Amino acid sequence: MKNRRTFLKKLAAGTVAAGFLSFTKKASAGEVQLKGALIHHVFFWLKEPGNKAHRKQFEKALEDLIKVDTIKVSHIGVPAETEERGVVENSYTYSYMVMFDSLKDQNIYQKHPLHLKFIEENEHLWGKVVVYDSVDA
Amino acid sequence: MKNRRTFLKKLAAGTVAAGFLSFTKKASAGEVQLKGALIHHVFFWLKEPGNKAHRKQFEKALEDLIKVDTIKVSHIGVPAETEERGVVENSYTYSYMVMFDSLKDQNIYQKHPLHLKFIEENEHLWGKVVVYDSVDA
Repeated sequence: MKNRRTFLKKLAAGTVAAGFLSFTKKASAGEVQLKGALIHHVFFWLKEPGNKAHRKQFEKALEDLIKVDTIKVSHIGVPAETEERGVVENSYTYSYMVMFDSLKDQNIYQKHPLHLKFIEENEHLWGKVVVYDSVDA
Repeated sequence: MKNRRTFLKKLAAGTVAAGFLSFTKKASAGEVQLKGALIHHVFFWLKEPGNKAHRKQFEKALEDLIKVDTIKVSHIGVPAETEERGVVENSYTYSYMVMFDSLKDQNIYQKHPLHLKFIEENEHLWGKVVVYDSVDA
């Protein structure tokens, strides 16, 4: 665990500008609850996760992909070094999480030239992909 | 798709207070890239997803769980009504996404009384659970 930053500290301290996001501030904890987003979380298993050229290409491709303008928040990740537990799936190579304002915006993204280009140029790199789309319960 | 709100509009418009979060604002798009969080995303498959009493109990239990004070951002979700595609996993019952500042904070969470209580009181409700932990690539 290196270069870990406490980037959410101010958010948690309750200094969120009211109305800036539709966050629900819990009085009982320094915690912010997201409301109203469509969360699109994709996990990729590269065919050759140890291949540095493949990783470099794929990371660059993800950085290009998040330029689609209906994406409002994004995170490009790798498995964390959390405790080994039976329920933890840490065999994937990349995590790609983006948030949209609506199903409509997600549909625009699916057909966007940058998204189609991403698939065309990179799908040979992965052996498996799993997508989870979630909205507020 | 009902009650959809465009909660991320202002964020995307570039009105993010500089330095407030370690967001990276892309000049090329109205997009904010998260950096520095540990994203803990859990998917639950309830044994009886159509059982209203079970759902009510479980949703209440998740609302209680996010009171753990090392959680900085949370989202409680259900599958979105996105397009049916082979790669989309939409058979789960609940999505539970939380963000921590660090691996240490996630470890505190794992042993927290509220987390242990959540498991003890609710594990009989789910038949399957999958956890993904991600940090910056």
